[in-house]
Amino acid sequence: MSEIIECVPNISEGRNKEVIEEIIENLKKRDVKLLDYSSDTDHNRTVITFAGDITKVKQGAVQVARDAVRLIDLRHHKGTHPRMGAIDVIPFIPISGITMKECVELSREVAREIAEDLNLPIYLYAESATRESRKALPSIRKGEFEGFSEKIKNPDWVPDFGPSEIHPSAGVTAVGAREFLIAYNINLNTKDINIGKKISRSIRESSGGLQYVQAKEMYLEDKGCVQISMNILNYKKAPIYRAFEIVKMEASRYGVNIIESELIGLMPMRAVLESFAFYIQLPELTEQQILETKINE
Amino acid sequence: MSEIIECVPNISEGRNKEVIEEIIENLKKRDVKLLDYSSDTDHNRTVITFAGDITKVKQGAVQVARDAVRLIDLRHHKGTHPRMGAIDVIPFIPISGITMKECVELSREVAREIAEDLNLPIYLYAESATRESRKALPSIRKGEFEGFSEKIKNPDWVPDFGPSEIHPSAGVTAVGAREFLIAYNINLNTKDINIGKKISRSIRESSGGLQYVQAKEMYLEDKGCVQISMNILNYKKAPIYRAFEIVKMEASRYGVNIIESELIGLMPMRAVLESFAFYIQLPELTEQQILETKINE
Repeated sequence: MSEIIECVPNISEGRNKEVIEEIIENLKKRDVKLLDYSSDTDHNRTVITFAGDITKVKQGAVQVARDAVRLIDLRHHKGTHPRMGAIDVIPFIPISGITMKECVELSREVAREIAEDLNLPIYLYAESATRESRKALPSIRKGEFEGFSEKIKNPDWVPDFGPSEIHPSAGVTAVGAREFLIAYNINLNTKDINIGKKISRSIRESSGGLQYVQAKEMYLEDKGCVQISMNILNYKKAPIYRAFEIVKMEASRYGVNIIESELIGLMPMRAVLESFAFYIQLPELTEQQILETKINE
Repeated sequence: MSEIIECVPNISEGRNKEVIEEIIENLKKRDVKLLDYSSDTDHNRTVITFAGDITKVKQGAVQVARDAVRLIDLRHHKGTHPRMGAIDVIPFIPISGITMKECVELSREVAREIAEDLNLPIYLYAESATRESRKALPSIRKGEFEGFSEKIKNPDWVPDFGPSEIHPSAGVTAVGAREFLIAYNINLNTKDINIGKKISRSIRESSGGLQYVQAKEMYLEDKGCVQISMNILNYKKAPIYRAFEIVKMEASRYGVNIIESELIGLMPMRAVLESFAFYIQLPELTEQQILETKINE
């Protein structure tokens, strides 16, 4: 199977089209597969998604970092989304033909390279984190750009690479490897938000439910029903079928049924195969058994 | 999505490696994607599987037909599998980015070309059939090579293309478009073949069960259990989950459970998505939502 890594750099510019286009155009020249990019003007932030093999993804990530640091000045930046760097975060996600360990290694190489080239402090996060307190992005990001001149002096927040002072205009950056995140919603045939509350509490990790699952209930005005909105942070350890079946089971306690579920954005084939194999009791189903995989080999 | 057709020519040679290799090597030169080829010496037959876009698949199919007619002489052919031609049958299967109608058109073009080039009588079969009696391959093939000198004189068996007499050494050929066939087995925790008999009777089309499903029960010596062995001839109309759930339901009547199921060979991604979407109640799931599809676009 061919080696595929996904990379989803978040840059702190969501309004200035010229800057965004320049960054995208330079990335395209790196021969990666641009899958998506979307800017949010409220957040003042752009999320770029691209893929390729190790070499190309590495070059692409370094290219985006260089351009972001050159073109974005956080001293003049306002937006609703928390941020600490011009290039705020660079996650690497193993898709196929590559292990998480290799993606961690890749993230370290990219971190080292951009730290040296750009004189930029880097924190390794998620699977690449060097200490527990750096696993979660929000805990690194706390204080944001404005607070980091002080935070970085704290011995607990010595960067993993780069200088121990922030880049004057570009702040600091988090780089790391993580699993693919699946955004998955389930609509219930109830208008009772309290039932939704009980169900989301039963499924989410933070209330003692399933590990790697974030969940919150919400009322959908247009559809007139309650939705359980989930993020599956590790679909290998918390497969989709398990989230679905637990929500279904908990809902049945209140006489509530599932109307339908919805997947937001792209899904790795592995996540589909895993749940499909569960339902029809296949001991295993590999991507090599999928016709299109063989054809694209 | 890129246009992909699968083609699975069956040639009446499964023993002479030189002949088989020459046919395979010439096919490879046609820039198609060779997915598999397997020879059976008892059957004295080789099944070749390749894929590509319309232009390439057409050239590949014509190439195999030409070489088979040139290299295989049915006057000296013995084997357990019924056959009527050196190139016995050429099915075209729509995989992605192409309709069944377009594959029927493709099959007609290939049929016309090889009929004229090789002076070979061609019967259109399956979705390409020009009359009901030519839909099923066994009904065309009846009488085999040896009986066809007579059969072809019958007005009911005037070929769709080519001369009304058999090719002296290569006989006649069936060409047509059909759906992808899924070979799918389910193992039951029983040793009672009579229970298997009742279940296979309830699922298969020929006993009044599910359309497009062939099924037979068999006892697996090595595993010590009964297996329901199925061919799903049209996975779009008879999705995998439906076959699985009916077998499960019928088995439960006898207190029998499913141990596991198994898929033989390659599966189109569409077939997996369809059954996965059923189980987690997704109204729809397209190949465009699969990360790998986007990456390979």
